[in-house]
Amino acid sequence: MALPIITIGRSFGSGGRIIGEKVATLLNIPLYDKELVKITAEKSGFHTSVVEQMQQNKPASLLYSLSGSAVEYPLQDQVFYAQSAVIRELAEKGPCVIVGRCADSILEEEHRILKVFIHAPISQRAARARDEYKITSRKPLDYIKYVKKCDKKRKAYYDYFTHRPWGKSEHYHLCIDSSIGLDIVADIIARAAREFPEKV
Amino acid sequence: MALPIITIGRSFGSGGRIIGEKVATLLNIPLYDKELVKITAEKSGFHTSVVEQMQQNKPASLLYSLSGSAVEYPLQDQVFYAQSAVIRELAEKGPCVIVGRCADSILEEEHRILKVFIHAPISQRAARARDEYKITSRKPLDYIKYVKKCDKKRKAYYDYFTHRPWGKSEHYHLCIDSSIGLDIVADIIARAAREFPEKV
Repeated sequence: MALPIITIGRSFGSGGRIIGEKVATLLNIPLYDKELVKITAEKSGFHTSVVEQMQQNKPASLLYSLSGSAVEYPLQDQVFYAQSAVIRELAEKGPCVIVGRCADSILEEEHRILKVFIHAPISQRAARARDEYKITSRKPLDYIKYVKKCDKKRKAYYDYFTHRPWGKSEHYHLCIDSSIGLDIVADIIARAAREFPEKV
Repeated sequence: MALPIITIGRSFGSGGRIIGEKVATLLNIPLYDKELVKITAEKSGFHTSVVEQMQQNKPASLLYSLSGSAVEYPLQDQVFYAQSAVIRELAEKGPCVIVGRCADSILEEEHRILKVFIHAPISQRAARARDEYKITSRKPLDYIKYVKKCDKKRKAYYDYFTHRPWGKSEHYHLCIDSSIGLDIVADIIARAAREFPEKV
């Protein structure tokens, strides 16, 4: 059976990208994560720094949106729609792993997708931010607070563009705590993909 | 490595018990689900129908609890504590699969457990209630409403006795949509159990 497209949402520091890489290697299919920034920039004309920044910001409030021009979308929305077009185009090419970017919501109407969400206990995520992502700051950094702040932004971004709650189990086929081990998590996802039914 | 105890929470009609049976068979360990009713009744002196009924009721409100005797717990709480003691005793004997009964919360302080939650789209669950569980009524039954009502009771029971939200992904190692196939779900759980780390 053909492989589905695999979308991986993830809480900050849960190792979602690393798991995505392992899954892509196991299944021998492409992975798109930060690559999407470059492709979106190339296709849309936005600078890569703008595309990147717009994904890290909390979306503007409704009030702010209403106060803007009636004929022009806020910049963040424009970048989102440009990236959504890129994601749809890549999905047309065949099975792949897409990390983040609300890809589950963008693709689910027209594609066969295995929707995954990765999370982990906050202490492990804070340790990963410090030791693996090497995030530092001039001032002493409270990594737990930092991770929570990043989660808050991801949640706001996802909720705003998909109109459904981020990380809620019923919206995913698999929600997995990565503290059981990154390799076993990747193995579980690859196995689910290989046996993913034609219709769900 | 020794197998963990596997706890399976499940939304009504998601096939959680069937998956539990498959996992127990794959791992060659005992399964406890409705068996717990009989054992709890034997050990506590409550009639099996009382034990069964108390698990299907929504817990009494706080106001109701306060209006009761100050020295005696409500019957539902008494049955819950009796069953919790049975679950702890069985867990001491070795790896097993326990379906429902808030076992994840009862055991997690003192045992190595793999916490699983099974869900599925409402339409599939309604179909399972009708076709496999053969639930009928004298009046024509709206199966979707019926499933939602059962979920509501399970959620209220779990939230009351564990003080945490039922089915929320961050409280489980694995949340799985059983519409991807009962066999593959059982296989994923068994695999995660076999490779479950000593410390999570």
